[in-house]
Amino acid sequence: MKPAELSPVELHFRVDRLLSRYVQCIDEDDLERWPEFFTEDCRYRIISRENADRGLPVSAIYCDSKGMLQDRVTALRHANIYAAHYYRHLVSSLQVLEVGEDFVVTESNYVVLQTLTDGDTHIYNAGKYRDRVVFDGDNLLYAEKHAIFDTYRIANLMVTPI
Amino acid sequence: MKPAELSPVELHFRVDRLLSRYVQCIDEDDLERWPEFFTEDCRYRIISRENADRGLPVSAIYCDSKGMLQDRVTALRHANIYAAHYYRHLVSSLQVLEVGEDFVVTESNYVVLQTLTDGDTHIYNAGKYRDRVVFDGDNLLYAEKHAIFDTYRIANLMVTPI
Amino acid sequence: MKPAELSPVELHFRVDRLLSRYVQCIDEDDLERWPEFFTEDCRYRIISRENADRGLPVSAIYCDSKGMLQDRVTALRHANIYAAHYYRHLVSSLQVLEVGEDFVVTESNYVVLQTLTDGDTHIYNAGKYRDRVVFDGDNLLYAEKHAIFDTYRIANLMVTPI
Repeated sequence: MKPAELSPVELHFRVDRLLSRYVQCIDEDDLERWPEFFTEDCRYRIISRENADRGLPVSAIYCDSKGMLQDRVTALRHANIYAAHYYRHLVSSLQVLEVGEDFVVTESNYVVLQTLTDGDTHIYNAGKYRDRVVFDGDNLLYAEKHAIFDTYRIANLMVTPI
Repeated sequence: MKPAELSPVELHFRVDRLLSRYVQCIDEDDLERWPEFFTEDCRYRIISRENADRGLPVSAIYCDSKGMLQDRVTALRHANIYAAHYYRHLVSSLQVLEVGEDFVVTESNYVVLQTLTDGDTHIYNAGKYRDRVVFDGDNLLYAEKHAIFDTYRIANLMVTPI
Repeated sequence: MKPAELSPVELHFRVDRLLSRYVQCIDEDDLERWPEFFTEDCRYRIISRENADRGLPVSAIYCDSKGMLQDRVTALRHANIYAAHYYRHLVSSLQVLEVGEDFVVTESNYVVLQTLTDGDTHIYNAGKYRDRVVFDGDNLLYAEKHAIFDTYRIANLMVTPI
């Protein structure tokens, strides 16, 4: 199935479902499955809005293959020291901005809420996703996922993906 | 109409509409209507993520009939003493996880924002809903609704439903 | 295309797309385009929940034409002094409450997150939109947009639209 063959409603629904499964994977701390949402030669980037707006390449996190995503998960599980926490994503305002032969470009707003060991929930990071989603038959994968964040004061080491 | 006869888009739309009406009912403080979203022998539970993950039964709130929900509203209106507040739900990432003969199981992320008498809005409770929705013809009702919360420091008495 | 000729799913999708584009326009600080979402004789109002509930007319912001919206943007760009900030809207629970000949009435919940120069993101304003959307062929426009807010302590001058 090609993106252009789907009705706008159906196309939106499929991309939205991918995004819901993606944030659920992170929120459930099921991170070993997280790289499975990406293509082999994906680009995953967490970058400040300021740098993204100015075209500056410096990112908080930059990975350019699925293997690098898997390495991040390994590091997170075995090497990084950080406070226990829960994550909770709220996303909204998903838009399909471009429909290509076998891909779409989308944007959506997100906020990641974090609950630390004191049991209190606060805003960890807010921003927007800018994604390139490829259609591999009925399977949708992220070829590019950019989390462009407003919140440039990062209280903790950023270990968990957004 | 049975859930399996609906297209995935249509099914998602109907469950989403139920959820929107549900949170609107609470946010508008129209709590006398709140039990109407449930079946007679419903289960309604607010439980910490930690307890839910470990299979521990202790809940912040547990009701196992529509009558108990009505009792809660009566208590809230006439017996409980608590600070005046506004509630505002944001929900996202609704997923239909299971489609049965006459029911579906869904999950969605939520955050409840609370505005107290100082006029400031803060995060009251974040987590996910895990719901069992039954189809009574075109009428959708919650047979089970679990609010599984991340925020385990509860600043106030939890009186208003989530 | 008239609203009543659309399926509920299609109708919801179109109003949701309008709302997504609307909040994106504000979040991207693309405010010169903001009045284009409205009809010439629109009403745009930001009002406290307390005043809206009591039928009191006093609003934080009230405009009754597209020209007034354009004036607000000019003032904001050239006259008002305020701290640099980013905005980020999260919206959910969109409902179509009324379907007329050439319009629909909708409600949705929103929260606006603000990031100031310290880089921290906080809740700026939460509430609900109550909108009257008119269909001008395939083009949807706001004839009325009311942001009815819970957050009645406004820390800063309210300059940017909600």
